[in-house]
Amino acid sequence: MLAYTYVDITAVESDMILQSLPFFANYWHYLLISLVSFLLFNTLARLSRVAKTARKILEQDKGEPESLNDEQGSDENDGEHLVEDDDDEPALPKDLEHVLYVYTRPSEEELIQRAREFYRVASARRTIRFFSPDPVPKEVIQEIVKSAGTAPSGAHTEPWTFVAVSDPRTKTAIREIVEKEEEINYKKRMGKKWTTDLQPLRTDWIKEYLTIAPYLILVFKQMYSIGPEGKRKIHYYNEMSVSIACGILLTAIQSTGLVTLTSTPLNCGPALRKLLNRPASEKLTLLLPVGYPARDATVPNLRRKSLSEILVEI
Amino acid sequence: MLAYTYVDITAVESDMILQSLPFFANYWHYLLISLVSFLLFNTLARLSRVAKTARKILEQDKGEPESLNDEQGSDENDGEHLVEDDDDEPALPKDLEHVLYVYTRPSEEELIQRAREFYRVASARRTIRFFSPDPVPKEVIQEIVKSAGTAPSGAHTEPWTFVAVSDPRTKTAIREIVEKEEEINYKKRMGKKWTTDLQPLRTDWIKEYLTIAPYLILVFKQMYSIGPEGKRKIHYYNEMSVSIACGILLTAIQSTGLVTLTSTPLNCGPALRKLLNRPASEKLTLLLPVGYPARDATVPNLRRKSLSEILVEI
Repeated sequence: MLAYTYVDITAVESDMILQSLPFFANYWHYLLISLVSFLLFNTLARLSRVAKTARKILEQDKGEPESLNDEQGSDENDGEHLVEDDDDEPALPKDLEHVLYVYTRPSEEELIQRAREFYRVASARRTIRFFSPDPVPKEVIQEIVKSAGTAPSGAHTEPWTFVAVSDPRTKTAIREIVEKEEEINYKKRMGKKWTTDLQPLRTDWIKEYLTIAPYLILVFKQMYSIGPEGKRKIHYYNEMSVSIACGILLTAIQSTGLVTLTSTPLNCGPALRKLLNRPASEKLTLLLPVGYPARDATVPNLRRKSLSEILVEI
Repeated sequence: MLAYTYVDITAVESDMILQSLPFFANYWHYLLISLVSFLLFNTLARLSRVAKTARKILEQDKGEPESLNDEQGSDENDGEHLVEDDDDEPALPKDLEHVLYVYTRPSEEELIQRAREFYRVASARRTIRFFSPDPVPKEVIQEIVKSAGTAPSGAHTEPWTFVAVSDPRTKTAIREIVEKEEEINYKKRMGKKWTTDLQPLRTDWIKEYLTIAPYLILVFKQMYSIGPEGKRKIHYYNEMSVSIACGILLTAIQSTGLVTLTSTPLNCGPALRKLLNRPASEKLTLLLPVGYPARDATVPNLRRKSLSEILVEI
């Protein structure tokens, strides 16, 4: 009869509370259930929305992709994204003219010779950490950026901005932002094993090259643009398009006879974006110091994968 | 005294139920609160984990990035990712040798001349949809892929596989997969406006170039690799690294004197991956038909952004 005893006590207590707070005393549990349920379902709905948005962004930039053609965003495109764009202006004029493609066909010997020559130049490229302060002609940087701008992009959006910094004060400000975050990375964010691992590469948070190299090229991807009616137009595949442009940029730097360091400064994006007055629609992708190597520049003695490790022939 | 009336009724009802189920009758609301709370908190925790994972992937490939250096994944790196890797083998040997970087410095005149020449070649590149069936020497494709393999990558993981297909039956199978999905895209997934928009580009779901072009290069990104102890090693920044390699690949094709079409076939990735026997750790990034253009190949008469639209000088 234990259960019955409990009931008796509760009944007595209930009676006592009922005298002072008759309605709430009797219904507090219903109210509590309602309140808890409301709060939890509310949070659930919010989290669902977050997860949905995240999944959408992931699919958009990582999943089955839309076209990355020069001309448009359609040929091998992501229909669901395009359907969303139904109200938007078409990317290209309706009466787009088509012209004959001008082309001179090389002989097979020429093809082989040119492909070998390109490989000879490309394979000499290395990431350089030690720069000479000697200036580089501005025109060279302009030609290099023009070359990067020939990259194909999703829906021909050309979603890139290149910021070429030679002004010493701006370079100093960039270095301060990067070194501040890097010092935190080295001293706090990383484990001991990580810093030990780094020793063979002789790197630390001091980034002298950021003020020594004559140019810093900061590559921003434009995640969206604002259309004529103030409507946001998402640049699908901006990450891939900008990275392809960076591949061309690296090749242009190499072909020209200059050196660079392909870096992605951790945690510095927003601060660098603000420093350089770039809009919120842009995000830092790469930071490349560009110039001549220092006379005593060294590189780690690395090997690349062989052709058989990266090519499958069918 | 309305509240009091309710209390009376409830008391009577309670008493009746108490006779048969004394314990549960009195405590059912506590149990219900506990059950509802448990279920909701459980779901909340699960959703939180989903959101956290999604955020991590987003940050990993889109947010403040880790290093994309040739040598390692550390210099300007994402510490939080590296800390997770604490148990892993270091990417590079501890006694990594450093050697003097061999370099011949060009004159300023040479720099300008080379930068201009590179731009001349790069800017002539166009996306071509009409191919000649004429074969291309295998060695040319090999040199082009070797060039792409010189790209820098996060932690020097070189996370790319290039599949070069010249076998007619495999090309036909690829075309069937792509056209099947594209027909659905054109007929079902897209709106009427979209197909109207496409008319100026004269494209449809028939992709003749997939069987006509002598080579199809399918670029796969390796999202992770399996370490010696069977442990998964995530390749951070595989998307960016592979896209940079594709930028070099496109430039190699262009420099050699061949043409290509930068395409990302919608919804075909998994089927093409299976057809080509690539592992689950790989994901299709680009599909590039490579060859000579058809004699009567046309291109839309497009313009590119001017230098002042893409370059900011500071």
